[in-house]
Amino acid sequence: MGTIKVAIVGYGNIGRYALEAVEAASDMECAGVVRRSGSSDGFPELEKYRVVSDVKALSTVDAAILAVPSRKVCQTAVSYLGLGINTVDSFDIHSEILSLKECLDPLARQSGAVSVISAGWDPGSDSMVRALMQALSPKGLTYTNFGPGRSMGHSVVAKAVEGVRDALSVTIPVGAGVHRRMVYVELEQGASFENVREGIVADPYFADDETYVIQVTDISQLNDVGHGVNMVRKGVSGKTHNQQFEFNMKINNPALTAQVMVSAARASFRQAPGCYTMIELPVIDLLEGERSDLIAKLV
Amino acid sequence: MGTIKVAIVGYGNIGRYALEAVEAASDMECAGVVRRSGSSDGFPELEKYRVVSDVKALSTVDAAILAVPSRKVCQTAVSYLGLGINTVDSFDIHSEILSLKECLDPLARQSGAVSVISAGWDPGSDSMVRALMQALSPKGLTYTNFGPGRSMGHSVVAKAVEGVRDALSVTIPVGAGVHRRMVYVELEQGASFENVREGIVADPYFADDETYVIQVTDISQLNDVGHGVNMVRKGVSGKTHNQQFEFNMKINNPALTAQVMVSAARASFRQAPGCYTMIELPVIDLLEGERSDLIAKLV
Repeated sequence: MGTIKVAIVGYGNIGRYALEAVEAASDMECAGVVRRSGSSDGFPELEKYRVVSDVKALSTVDAAILAVPSRKVCQTAVSYLGLGINTVDSFDIHSEILSLKECLDPLARQSGAVSVISAGWDPGSDSMVRALMQALSPKGLTYTNFGPGRSMGHSVVAKAVEGVRDALSVTIPVGAGVHRRMVYVELEQGASFENVREGIVADPYFADDETYVIQVTDISQLNDVGHGVNMVRKGVSGKTHNQQFEFNMKINNPALTAQVMVSAARASFRQAPGCYTMIELPVIDLLEGERSDLIAKLV
Repeated sequence: MGTIKVAIVGYGNIGRYALEAVEAASDMECAGVVRRSGSSDGFPELEKYRVVSDVKALSTVDAAILAVPSRKVCQTAVSYLGLGINTVDSFDIHSEILSLKECLDPLARQSGAVSVISAGWDPGSDSMVRALMQALSPKGLTYTNFGPGRSMGHSVVAKAVEGVRDALSVTIPVGAGVHRRMVYVELEQGASFENVREGIVADPYFADDETYVIQVTDISQLNDVGHGVNMVRKGVSGKTHNQQFEFNMKINNPALTAQVMVSAARASFRQAPGCYTMIELPVIDLLEGERSDLIAKLV
């Protein structure tokens, strides 16, 4: 095939970085951006692209980057796959990934399309490293330590506590997959900090973790999309114990998520129709360039 | 298929660890060991297996672990593939991997078999990590820092210098893919240490690296098969710079190599006929267990 024509669906944080990753890839071009508003208003970088409210208004679309919230991934993927368009999402509800796959797989096969799901960094590239570490030492323990970086899920929960105007929950790794939560809150006028603190630490999202609640005057001053992970495994290769593996990242979170999605979109054209998680893709398929060159340079 | 019947071809260091890895895998059994001598003499652990000088003397063999020197991989793989037996090797001459693949690929297709080549840790699992790091940040630099651990190639070269009875070259990482060589030598009676030192540092294997030559009385006292790697990449995801990635291992070298080979043997039964490097295999295929369980647990 020639250049891969990629539509960006949703233009929030991830969508914007996904457009940059498509623009940076020499084997891809942006086929357009799909937004509810159908408008590029407020985003000068979109002026050179078609911005539509329905993907059918775009001419050729080979693949769609579904930069939508996890809860909207399934319905969105179903409609795109039905049009024969390959899809990539970064669905991140770990406990529901297998059922998403089982839902999308028959639809993708039926329309001769490919769906790559949960293609962010965790789930996503971290999953590939976890699987590789297990292949290298089948018995043992792997710990995934996140952060420091903000947790969207925990921030949303803290924000919903009465008296909180805005909140930011930062995940601090304390080792062996255990995390401390640093929750920064901006209070509503007249709210009691002690009540807010108690409301947060009692929530099931925080109850099992060491949690600090800290009052600040302006959450927006804390905005930083840096994040990280430290994955460690100590295990057994064959019958040999004490094999030690470690993977670390310090990254701009949405930029990495978007890059994984765009690399996965490329890989989608190298798979038979169906739905795949990242650990089911050969890593070479994620890469731009001639396969023989990649083998010569990377193996 | 039922249990995978694996023959171990060659019973040196890697072969012995490969047998342990096959014994530790519940989906595999050892179909026998192929040795030039055709004898289990000196290896009590082989008494329960058939040891033969020709694989044709074994009944069913699904896959062969070619635990033979790199220089013998091609001819050995050709003969096993001709018998329709899947092969796995740990061919480690980086500059010749692509031509080995191009040689074995048509043979494997012709006999409906699968060959996985260069399935050690570097080349092998490190190659998968290098490729993944590049997928996560397509522009940037990756450094592979080996050690501390012994280099077989460098040890052999040092041993060949006149006046050297035995030698061990240890690779010390000094960063950015540059290595220092610590060469331990046991001298022949009457040999001049200074001549030996000059002979070693002048050899093209050592000439470009900082090299220390140290005289010892008994090389065998230094024997330790521990090794390690530190891989770092700093690159660009989309248009976002300063994305940082790191992979570290501290491992028993032959045990890890053998485990990678045995995991690759499993994966060989999940590929279409042909010849593959590790970066062309989905990582899930390396793992024992139900695919849906693996996806639920690892993704």
